[in-house]
Amino acid sequence: MDSAIVLVRALDLVGTFVFATSGAAMGVRRGLDLFGVLVLGCVTATAGGVLRDVLIGAIPPAALSSWLPLAIALVAGLLAFRFDRVLEKLRQPVQFFDAVGLGVFAVAGTQKALAFGLDWPMAIVLGMVGGIGGGIARDVLTARVPTLLRSEIYAVAALAGGLVVVAGASIELESTVGGLLGIVVCTSLRLLALYRGWKLPVATPRDDDG
Amino acid sequence: MDSAIVLVRALDLVGTFVFATSGAAMGVRRGLDLFGVLVLGCVTATAGGVLRDVLIGAIPPAALSSWLPLAIALVAGLLAFRFDRVLEKLRQPVQFFDAVGLGVFAVAGTQKALAFGLDWPMAIVLGMVGGIGGGIARDVLTARVPTLLRSEIYAVAALAGGLVVVAGASIELESTVGGLLGIVVCTSLRLLALYRGWKLPVATPRDDDG
Amino acid sequence: MDSAIVLVRALDLVGTFVFATSGAAMGVRRGLDLFGVLVLGCVTATAGGVLRDVLIGAIPPAALSSWLPLAIALVAGLLAFRFDRVLEKLRQPVQFFDAVGLGVFAVAGTQKALAFGLDWPMAIVLGMVGGIGGGIARDVLTARVPTLLRSEIYAVAALAGGLVVVAGASIELESTVGGLLGIVVCTSLRLLALYRGWKLPVATPRDDDG
Repeated sequence: MDSAIVLVRALDLVGTFVFATSGAAMGVRRGLDLFGVLVLGCVTATAGGVLRDVLIGAIPPAALSSWLPLAIALVAGLLAFRFDRVLEKLRQPVQFFDAVGLGVFAVAGTQKALAFGLDWPMAIVLGMVGGIGGGIARDVLTARVPTLLRSEIYAVAALAGGLVVVAGASIELESTVGGLLGIVVCTSLRLLALYRGWKLPVATPRDDDG
Repeated sequence: MDSAIVLVRALDLVGTFVFATSGAAMGVRRGLDLFGVLVLGCVTATAGGVLRDVLIGAIPPAALSSWLPLAIALVAGLLAFRFDRVLEKLRQPVQFFDAVGLGVFAVAGTQKALAFGLDWPMAIVLGMVGGIGGGIARDVLTARVPTLLRSEIYAVAALAGGLVVVAGASIELESTVGGLLGIVVCTSLRLLALYRGWKLPVATPRDDDG
Repeated sequence: MDSAIVLVRALDLVGTFVFATSGAAMGVRRGLDLFGVLVLGCVTATAGGVLRDVLIGAIPPAALSSWLPLAIALVAGLLAFRFDRVLEKLRQPVQFFDAVGLGVFAVAGTQKALAFGLDWPMAIVLGMVGGIGGGIARDVLTARVPTLLRSEIYAVAALAGGLVVVAGASIELESTVGGLLGIVVCTSLRLLALYRGWKLPVATPRDDDG
């Protein structure tokens, strides 16, 4: 199972890199200066995990105990700042890795929350917080209504990944197996939603009033 | 005094329900999808208490230790999503229960902060944070200047409720009696401000410059 | 060295006052009522330090353990509300003290994070969080993209101040000497950037795409 752990660690760093890229790209588009772009990249990559760790009492948060996540986020931000035109052309690979990052963060967050003794429904919620918190912070800092709340199946995929982790734990599946299964489910669901255009219902243009 | 505790518990759940309804209704109005509406409902119902608990060191926060508040917030969000037209017509009852929720959250937060050893002025501030934090998070997530900061007597009522709790404790009043008194003071003040149109002064259109 | 400690304490209160003034002035400009102005002043003065303390596990945060910072922030808010026209004319002194406040908060935050056992790169980051967090919270609450992320050398000055503290500690400089040096470096850098119009590069109007 060692190789599975190495895989999860590697995916975690990939997730950090991709989330930081998405934050930095938003900063470039909104006309922030170099520092603002780097900060937005770091916040997008770490805010979800930091919030999750604060809420479960894992202090200092993982993103502040090691310099590696922050260093990766800074490199991603610098690259996004320098090569923002290239990024535009790469939209599909970015969306693919973003889906992988979502799966990894949601699964790792759920497992961490379970390890800190939270009940399983709350552990799934905290996994989701770890997966989507960064994107929400990115949008709040650029004064937009978070896109995650507006469209597409994103957080729901994170919940599904967390649910797989919990289900796996309840049938005493090895945690790396359950984790990998959760990542696959979350990432596939997100990618399917993207490419098929699945969306959740919206209330606004309704004519019946129940 | 048992019945008083039951009353406070029941009011706490009523407050959660009403705050979640207010968040979900805002989500519907801003065109969020079903998931966004549910998240906004849950955040509005729990963010104030979660922030308060993080600041006083009550980890994990109460809203994450039990599934009941989140379940109530989800039900409120689903109802608001389905019956948003009905909600419009119910504005007065919603405002009434919102005032009750504010009182309950402000009082319970002040008592909890006192129990965690904070000085009384800070306990009152943290009671207010618990009462108004959810509404502020709701407005930040929908990219608006929080309405609580702009108009009407709302947070001031929360401070008044907390002050009654502290005053009651200083004369060794039974804590449930002090709490109920605080809820009555806060809720009445809020309702009076609503129906009489009381507002706090605004600086902008001034002609003298001191 | 006692007088140096007294100096740092005094500067810390000056920083609180100036940051609160900047938040309250923004509240007046955005048409908030008296309460909103006071809240925005208090949040601007304390949010950075509170976030830093939550992240390093210093619970309850310093701003909630003593009533003094909050009282100073309230007085600053009341003055800003009453004398907002005067404030306009005082822009230069306000910017001067704001730079001093930034230096003090960045240095004190770095030292506190080191004392709580964080690695030095993270300690510098947390010092910066303490110095700029309030301004970011102020802008988020008034639904603006934080100005710190958009222009001028501000957070970079905070990082420089923190770096001086860390460098001083590594050559076993007395911590008050290192701290004062850090404050001088951060404040001077910020003032130079202000008066010379130094800015960081912005990505938007580029024609080469790397």
